Amino acid sequence: MKKSALQQARAAYQPKLPIVLTGAVKAVEGEPTQSVADQEDIKNLFPNTYGLPELKFEKNTNPAAGKPINVGVILSGGQAPGGHNVISGLFDGIKKIHKESKLYGFLMGPGGFVDHQYMELTGSIIDEYRNTGGFDIIGSGRTKLETKEQFDKGLEILKELNIKALVIIGGDDSNTNAAILAEYYKSIEAGVQVIGCPKTIDGDLKNGLIETSFGFDTATKVYSEVIGNIQRDCNSAKKYWHFIKLMGRSASHIALECALQTQPNICIVSEEIEQKNMTLGDIVDYIAGVVAKRAENGNNFGTVLIPEGLIEFIPAMKKLIAELNDLLAHNAEEFAAAENQRQYIIEHLSAENSAVYASLPEGVARQLSLDRDPHGNVQVSLIETEKLLSEMVGRRLAEMKEEGKFVGKFAALHHFFGYEGRCADPSNFDADYCYALGFNAACLINSGVTGYMSSVRNLTKPSVQWIAGGIPITMMMNMERRHGAMKPVIQKALVRLDDAPFLKFASKRDVWAVDTCYMYPGPIQYFGPAEVCDQPSMTLRYEHQGK
Amino acid sequence: MKKSALQQARAAYQPKLPIVLTGAVKAVEGEPTQSVADQEDIKNLFPNTYGLPELKFEKNTNPAAGKPINVGVILSGGQAPGGHNVISGLFDGIKKIHKESKLYGFLMGPGGFVDHQYMELTGSIIDEYRNTGGFDIIGSGRTKLETKEQFDKGLEILKELNIKALVIIGGDDSNTNAAILAEYYKSIEAGVQVIGCPKTIDGDLKNGLIETSFGFDTATKVYSEVIGNIQRDCNSAKKYWHFIKLMGRSASHIALECALQTQPNICIVSEEIEQKNMTLGDIVDYIAGVVAKRAENGNNFGTVLIPEGLIEFIPAMKKLIAELNDLLAHNAEEFAAAENQRQYIIEHLSAENSAVYASLPEGVARQLSLDRDPHGNVQVSLIETEKLLSEMVGRRLAEMKEEGKFVGKFAALHHFFGYEGRCADPSNFDADYCYALGFNAACLINSGVTGYMSSVRNLTKPSVQWIAGGIPITMMMNMERRHGAMKPVIQKALVRLDDAPFLKFASKRDVWAVDTCYMYPGPIQYFGPAEVCDQPSMTLRYEHQGK
Repeated sequence: MKKSALQQARAAYQPKLPIVLTGAVKAVEGEPTQSVADQEDIKNLFPNTYGLPELKFEKNTNPAAGKPINVGVILSGGQAPGGHNVISGLFDGIKKIHKESKLYGFLMGPGGFVDHQYMELTGSIIDEYRNTGGFDIIGSGRTKLETKEQFDKGLEILKELNIKALVIIGGDDSNTNAAILAEYYKSIEAGVQVIGCPKTIDGDLKNGLIETSFGFDTATKVYSEVIGNIQRDCNSAKKYWHFIKLMGRSASHIALECALQTQPNICIVSEEIEQKNMTLGDIVDYIAGVVAKRAENGNNFGTVLIPEGLIEFIPAMKKLIAELNDLLAHNAEEFAAAENQRQYIIEHLSAENSAVYASLPEGVARQLSLDRDPHGNVQVSLIETEKLLSEMVGRRLAEMKEEGKFVGKFAALHHFFGYEGRCADPSNFDADYCYALGFNAACLINSGVTGYMSSVRNLTKPSVQWIAGGIPITMMMNMERRHGAMKPVIQKALVRLDDAPFLKFASKRDVWAVDTCYMYPGPIQYFGPAEVCDQPSMTLRYEHQGK
Repeated sequence: MKKSALQQARAAYQPKLPIVLTGAVKAVEGEPTQSVADQEDIKNLFPNTYGLPELKFEKNTNPAAGKPINVGVILSGGQAPGGHNVISGLFDGIKKIHKESKLYGFLMGPGGFVDHQYMELTGSIIDEYRNTGGFDIIGSGRTKLETKEQFDKGLEILKELNIKALVIIGGDDSNTNAAILAEYYKSIEAGVQVIGCPKTIDGDLKNGLIETSFGFDTATKVYSEVIGNIQRDCNSAKKYWHFIKLMGRSASHIALECALQTQPNICIVSEEIEQKNMTLGDIVDYIAGVVAKRAENGNNFGTVLIPEGLIEFIPAMKKLIAELNDLLAHNAEEFAAAENQRQYIIEHLSAENSAVYASLPEGVARQLSLDRDPHGNVQVSLIETEKLLSEMVGRRLAEMKEEGKFVGKFAALHHFFGYEGRCADPSNFDADYCYALGFNAACLINSGVTGYMSSVRNLTKPSVQWIAGGIPITMMMNMERRHGAMKPVIQKALVRLDDAPFLKFASKRDVWAVDTCYMYPGPIQYFGPAEVCDQPSMTLRYEHQGK
């Protein structure tokens, strides 16, 4: 692998560990925990791993001699910057326990575990990947570890390789499955510990003890870099409105963080749309209103940030999509044969949903009716919300112009950022955080626990002051309906409208809307002054200030 | 203006000047020059400014005392990183000549010059913009300075402000107009010098003495950063082909530079397509062939770079567009009334063009027939070539699958990068180069010349070793047909297929296509080791090696 100049220089970076992890540690138990909700159900489903105590590592002045241990690691789900550092931290951690410890990586995600595809991760391989982005060291995948058959199949290869602990690096679903796997292996006394690490750029896997998931910091910095650049362009040419959609699945954490970093004219927060029961028309009116107000001041340009998951948070659209899924599933042939499919849909939907559908621009209407997944459902993530909104805003402004309420020009450009940030080289924050999460996972393994998530916190302080420990995954769980049945799952952390990051944004947005207050964060820096290179996300900083 | 942490730290950066410009200079004349072609015509059109000598600055051990001079500056056309540094270099340059010199900026491009919209650029304003991206210090615009009326109108404000020299920062068209303005002011003895500076991210304004236009370095580094990130994602998930369109107008310099930096599986070079007289079908076959070959090795993923101007370089598409423009201009009403517009076009085009049109995916066919500019011409830049190609490749692969020639999967994602890079904070290279161009422009003014372009060269050497001087703009000109008449214009520098950057690419691409040789350049760094922070573009490096 030929390396770029930056990667060669960056390879030498030594992530900073929390001071406590630099020597021998002992796990100090806190109070027994309980799940965030549905305690009885979760307890019944996890008889062996429920109610375990929180753990915190402290210095151990009298450590026992370590023994070699074989560990397996899996990267699960979408890429996030820093995954390679979790693995290198884990590697260094188990090597510190004993130099004959071995690390095996399962290839292309959980599927490699089930299908026995693996490689040993030696020191020379690990060294190639330190401080780099991507998951390409072993690849990732989206196979869900859910069934007893999978668990048993996986156990075969664990036994064959004498692996005593499995580390699963993933998001909420993958960690849910890690907890189920931990419970199962414990119940059959398989002698394999399972440890999770909190990964996702979306930032929706967090709580009091998991302050942030890794990758969020780097990804949002990359998006903010390009958003800032676009804003500077926008403010130089003064003739376009840029509609910028941002990845992040359901939650709006990414859009909100980017808004805090770049101060755009508009940022839509899905969670607020839902709470206020806003329609698509309300959102369009809001944006058109800001465009008109800026036009009054001669500013026919601006920026709008749009979270990827928006559509599903608009109650009226949610209802429309649900009825559409139903309608098209039950009348697939008739629909396919219809001469005018748009008309067919308009005639067959309930009056309320029919009106919403009829109001949509043709392109989006087509996406809603044609681009369906193998289960026949609308592929919401494929809907070009940025174009949908700008087109509807354009129409609304044309009406306002006739009414004398809009005096300017409106021309829109569109962007979608996601893949640009998921595999960036981790920021110093993510490089340190990930390395600590992996190293800490080795300490959790050494302390003999299972069903725990690696927890490193106090993250707005310098990394040497970070606190390290573990929390039982079951304490993050509740019961939710999935595919028609109640399942134990980790509760997704959506943007809280009463929490500091959103409140900060809400207190500023009216000024940002009308004035031009753009911030230009620029690209991630790895070698400069600490105030440039070592700052955690604004979300994290405001959350901690708010405490 | 609230500044980001990076911008605060970056404000302190002192661009490095060529050593010769750090003291007093004298202009040393070289041989008289002539235009690159059509010498007689150009000479007749520029009687006062043709045939001037090349200039090179050397140390002046016996300089005369400087006098205060008022200078005007205009940013013309699309944004390019470093424009603010040209202006700050110019400011420092004229202040060094005499501390009472004044700099006036005309607002929102050449239009501000004609309409007398301006501001004085004081030291405190300049300091706010040093080393920043964007053109927002005075804004830019696309008004073309072409008519005597404009020149005379502009002269009024120059006289009012006692401005003796005008610096026009722009691309090939803007510098062409700078030359015409210089000639005109000289011919009427207006007493105003005109100096040009070579700006454009597209990289198509260059020759032996203008080694590169500013902004190309930074913009291509930003694009290569995100392309690299996408490639790492692509190589981790191993399930998508990413079709990435890149800005750059007609020339493919940007795509080629990004290819050299990131080593994608495929990069299309428009100039090669034209030279080989390739059809859209040939390009599709080439891409589909690479997809199939990678699939044989189990690699159902990859990246394709596509230059923005491609469509116009495909001879068959060029012909189609020309006939379409004609057809729709002459039959606008009939076309508008046609029930099936696609069918209307198919029936009314010549057989050859009709076949090409019929082969296009519906979305692109619609763009070709509906999205027209005010002159009725197809807006080629709006055509989503990345989607056009991936859709046609998908169809071709489906055929190949039936023929047993393709055994893999094909799923595509699309990106277009342009606005992300035009206003990035300039790289060290562009920060130094732009500052030197501006400072050097002040030296040219001080030496009394007009119709010159600021020329700083030897750019692959450390910036202190750069050579500074000026070249007569007329020497870059030839006659070309524009709007039906022959006009003197600066010759656009397209990618040369016999030059080192393309040859390097061509020698590697077959390996890059099949193997996965991705490079991940990462974000621009400002504070790290020189090999990371101070490297000029690969294009420039190969061009110089090739000499």
